[in-house]
Amino acid sequence: MAQDLVIGIDVGGQTTKCGVVDARGTVLAQTVIRSDETTDAEVFIASLAEALNHIIAEAGVEGRIRGIGVGAPNGNYYTGTIEFAPNLKWTLAGSKIIPFAKMLSAQMNGIPVSLTNDANAAAVGEMTYGAARGMKNFIMITLGTGVGSGIIINGEVVYGHDGFAGELGHTCAVRHNGRACGCGKSGCLEAYCSAIGVARTAREWLEMTDEPSELRSLDKITSKDVYEAAKDGDKLALKIFEYTGRILGEKLADFIEFSAPEAIVLFGGLARSKEFLTEPILTAMNANVLPLWRDKVKLVYSSLKESDAAILGASALAWEL
Amino acid sequence: MAQDLVIGIDVGGQTTKCGVVDARGTVLAQTVIRSDETTDAEVFIASLAEALNHIIAEAGVEGRIRGIGVGAPNGNYYTGTIEFAPNLKWTLAGSKIIPFAKMLSAQMNGIPVSLTNDANAAAVGEMTYGAARGMKNFIMITLGTGVGSGIIINGEVVYGHDGFAGELGHTCAVRHNGRACGCGKSGCLEAYCSAIGVARTAREWLEMTDEPSELRSLDKITSKDVYEAAKDGDKLALKIFEYTGRILGEKLADFIEFSAPEAIVLFGGLARSKEFLTEPILTAMNANVLPLWRDKVKLVYSSLKESDAAILGASALAWEL
Repeated sequence: MAQDLVIGIDVGGQTTKCGVVDARGTVLAQTVIRSDETTDAEVFIASLAEALNHIIAEAGVEGRIRGIGVGAPNGNYYTGTIEFAPNLKWTLAGSKIIPFAKMLSAQMNGIPVSLTNDANAAAVGEMTYGAARGMKNFIMITLGTGVGSGIIINGEVVYGHDGFAGELGHTCAVRHNGRACGCGKSGCLEAYCSAIGVARTAREWLEMTDEPSELRSLDKITSKDVYEAAKDGDKLALKIFEYTGRILGEKLADFIEFSAPEAIVLFGGLARSKEFLTEPILTAMNANVLPLWRDKVKLVYSSLKESDAAILGASALAWEL
Repeated sequence: MAQDLVIGIDVGGQTTKCGVVDARGTVLAQTVIRSDETTDAEVFIASLAEALNHIIAEAGVEGRIRGIGVGAPNGNYYTGTIEFAPNLKWTLAGSKIIPFAKMLSAQMNGIPVSLTNDANAAAVGEMTYGAARGMKNFIMITLGTGVGSGIIINGEVVYGHDGFAGELGHTCAVRHNGRACGCGKSGCLEAYCSAIGVARTAREWLEMTDEPSELRSLDKITSKDVYEAAKDGDKLALKIFEYTGRILGEKLADFIEFSAPEAIVLFGGLARSKEFLTEPILTAMNANVLPLWRDKVKLVYSSLKESDAAILGASALAWEL
């Protein structure tokens, strides 16, 4: 039988999702395993291979897997390694550089494995199955716990000289006295426009002002709480989204001046707050970009089914193998 | 005889330089014509064709021209047009969109013509003949009257969706109360790190402080005056270069996070002040970039002979035709 299917694997700090996918982007079978039950990369990859063989059997598609695509934090496309990922605990002979693609391929009877970081995988997924179908130049921004990015130029992911290009979440949004970021720098876009950044803005503003807000009654504030409050018309919550959107829009203008994309594609948990983010993003983006791009670059949201998106994104990589 | 030569044309607001170039980057014959003696694009292109035929005859290389490369402000690679270039006065039937490549090719018996903006041409020149030979991923920054840029990813110029990508001079260097830029925005990198920006820093600082400086004796200050003063050990002039280098280095960190280049290549009149710029640029760049790129991205200066660089850059485009 033809090798007409691929596997997509989304590696996260707590769980790893995998699924068998056909050319139309239908997930035929999927499963989830824990990422954090072992610190031994070999043990993890053996259990991942077992899970893959299980879903292949479940879907009855033995022999039809053409390739495996993996999206992983700090994944390097050129080398197939995961290098020093802060939220993954695996080591291999004491090293935090894991030759993940090679190890997985060996466990899967030589099926080729392609690996990249999760945001790049999401961008390829969007181009193959989603909102960016037919686009050759776009920038995907993932607004999740952090801010990731995948840059597509001429229909290809930008990997750069070393395989790590596209760290737009760590470009500078606030130059002076910016917030400390998890990366060790300060003022990074991620420190403001991620789910964690939004929650932090809320906490800071609640402390700094006396403005009434339903958020004051909460013990621990998440970006979802801010979203719910904004839906209730809470003024402080609405202002938080305005601020978040403005900072993101200002940086998007810089990115447009770099690669002149057809569109910016937003994805991730925080992108669900689009009813409050779209306007401030567009206003700031268009106010800060050169006149030649004003009101010309589209802002679109991921169209992939949320539960499948991570697997689809990673699987899309495998079609290029 | 084989078509083994190309022509490079560098279109500027006042003069247009052109030359016949061989595969090694030797300029066999060259000439300069005025750009500003007519506002009629057809008249200009006819006189340009005449000049080209003259240097072809002078070098005795009739029939050997394989293609013509043009670097021009606001040049669009995809369409071969020059669109709304502020410092070029030509119109065609009342329009500021000039189909330059097509018109020139028609005047030159159908020799193919490739056109892009001047900074992109400089980047291709550097990759073909200069400091970036062998590099597949680098960013060229031209520090002249303005700040231009040419971005190379996987060995190719980034043109973007519309052909105008790579306007790094107009990314935001100073977010709040930034200087007005010629483009209509404020706070642009170009407003600080161009020759004009350096002169402006000098004027502002002389006015704002009482600091002694040999620059105080001058009527009109240029970036060259600031350079001369710095060479004399003038403290204010040295501080101006430190400030200029820091602002540039901060933005270079953002650019590195975008495309992970092997090197940043600096070019243009202001780049001649490298003895005062290199250290502050590198310090700011490495302080602002993610740890994974710290001290890893090279900062190099153009190695092309100044007088030939513009022609060589444009000519390099023609080899790709």
